[in-house]
Amino acid sequence: MNEGFGSRLRSALDRHGPLCVGIDPHAALLDSWGLPQSAEGVRAFGLAVVDAAAGRVAAIKPQVAFFERFGSAGFAALEDVLAAARSAKLLTIADAKRGDIGTTMAGYAQAWLEPGAPLEADALTISPYLGGGSLAEAITQALPVGKGVFVLAATSNPDGASVQQARTDVPGETVALRVTRDVTALDVAGTALGSVGLVVGATIDRSAFALDDDTLRTVPLLAPGFGAQGATPADLRARFGTLAGNVLASESRSILSAGPDGIAATIEERAARYQEVMGG
Amino acid sequence: MNEGFGSRLRSALDRHGPLCVGIDPHAALLDSWGLPQSAEGVRAFGLAVVDAAAGRVAAIKPQVAFFERFGSAGFAALEDVLAAARSAKLLTIADAKRGDIGTTMAGYAQAWLEPGAPLEADALTISPYLGGGSLAEAITQALPVGKGVFVLAATSNPDGASVQQARTDVPGETVALRVTRDVTALDVAGTALGSVGLVVGATIDRSAFALDDDTLRTVPLLAPGFGAQGATPADLRARFGTLAGNVLASESRSILSAGPDGIAATIEERAARYQEVMGG
Repeated sequence: MNEGFGSRLRSALDRHGPLCVGIDPHAALLDSWGLPQSAEGVRAFGLAVVDAAAGRVAAIKPQVAFFERFGSAGFAALEDVLAAARSAKLLTIADAKRGDIGTTMAGYAQAWLEPGAPLEADALTISPYLGGGSLAEAITQALPVGKGVFVLAATSNPDGASVQQARTDVPGETVALRVTRDVTALDVAGTALGSVGLVVGATIDRSAFALDDDTLRTVPLLAPGFGAQGATPADLRARFGTLAGNVLASESRSILSAGPDGIAATIEERAARYQEVMGG
Repeated sequence: MNEGFGSRLRSALDRHGPLCVGIDPHAALLDSWGLPQSAEGVRAFGLAVVDAAAGRVAAIKPQVAFFERFGSAGFAALEDVLAAARSAKLLTIADAKRGDIGTTMAGYAQAWLEPGAPLEADALTISPYLGGGSLAEAITQALPVGKGVFVLAATSNPDGASVQQARTDVPGETVALRVTRDVTALDVAGTALGSVGLVVGATIDRSAFALDDDTLRTVPLLAPGFGAQGATPADLRARFGTLAGNVLASESRSILSAGPDGIAATIEERAARYQEVMGG
């Protein structure tokens, strides 16, 4: 059995603090970086971000859609970016939001979480519209090989509430809570940080989703919404309270818009601000 | 403006009947076909299925996970399979269940629905855990270029109900119905078959999801669950009633298990049985 993802994440958080750098090479950013709208463009962009992030933060999070739009050539670029991040000892979270059932879900786990796979990452974001239990095939494949998942639970986009705050037939249970219960039941971490994480928006009111601190005590939280989307490093403690130590705070635009010349300094400055807040 | 996806689907259904052949090259099927566990294996498998399906059915539906597990090489194989299907005048539905928000969702639409994209398909399955409205960027890109989507709504896997039958704050509204309302509101079809479809399990009780026939009148329905999963051609009319004419009945295992030598005859026989039921 490999060291668990939760344990590796704990070490990375303790060492580097909570900042996770998103790699979102959308069209406007490629333009402003002077890069072409092509697989070569997203490769160069991704490799530059990895280079700037190496040694400075816990993790990087490539947004898969921006590579996928160039088809197989875009995926080849992403393979190179993931390999470079692995070499640089950055944790890699593939933000792909995959979700299916049975052998198909297992196929996604093979694609992203199997050691030696071309697209190997340390963790994958997955989506539970087919039910939290439908993700079991991916989770049970991931954990024994030291990989993790972040399951979409409670997101900050306005449309999210229409699904995630809906009520199941269990009194007091929202969809977000039901998914959380279903997927964390598959974890094996005990009292340490687990390997089955959740995606929880930085700016949401967790109580509207019925997600209390006790339920989330040992759950890694991937929190988009920091930086350009509004949450600040100071908000991390204010919004996550006793859970703050388990949060990966993901920033994309606020960092990437610094451009190729400014990004390393920007990452260093942002990482230091989070470390300050966390008393690191 | 191109001919809409709904209109093209209507023609294909009228001509060939409802059968949609799934292309699911999972490990066990590759073995039984005598093909290697590699991108070459899934390419050969996919091309053989396209060849057998050409001229006999309305559509093929590659299950993207089984290509994705081989990384960029698997996607290159899928590009070839999609191109072959296009040349053979088969409608192509990429079963990828992508789902995200904003520019990221737009990235997925570019990847799969933009004319000329390497992975171009006629329609893409998409997943609404982030809310039906979150999918708007994909839908508004797809429709003007003659492409369609099938949004996960009410599925037949046992875990699906925990999310899809949950109740929103609108009386009588399930998550499945809310998603349906949100996404079909973005369609432009009027009284003809639309281009914003739903994935609805063949074996579900639609009333448990509050999905009534009036709501679905002009909505294309992609129904997995035929064949090995239990629903028969005769069930199509029994289960879908007046909506049966808008259903793509997807079969995978029941057809693919015929092997490379038997698949063409099996498709022909299955297609004929559906045509009979539909009075074609």
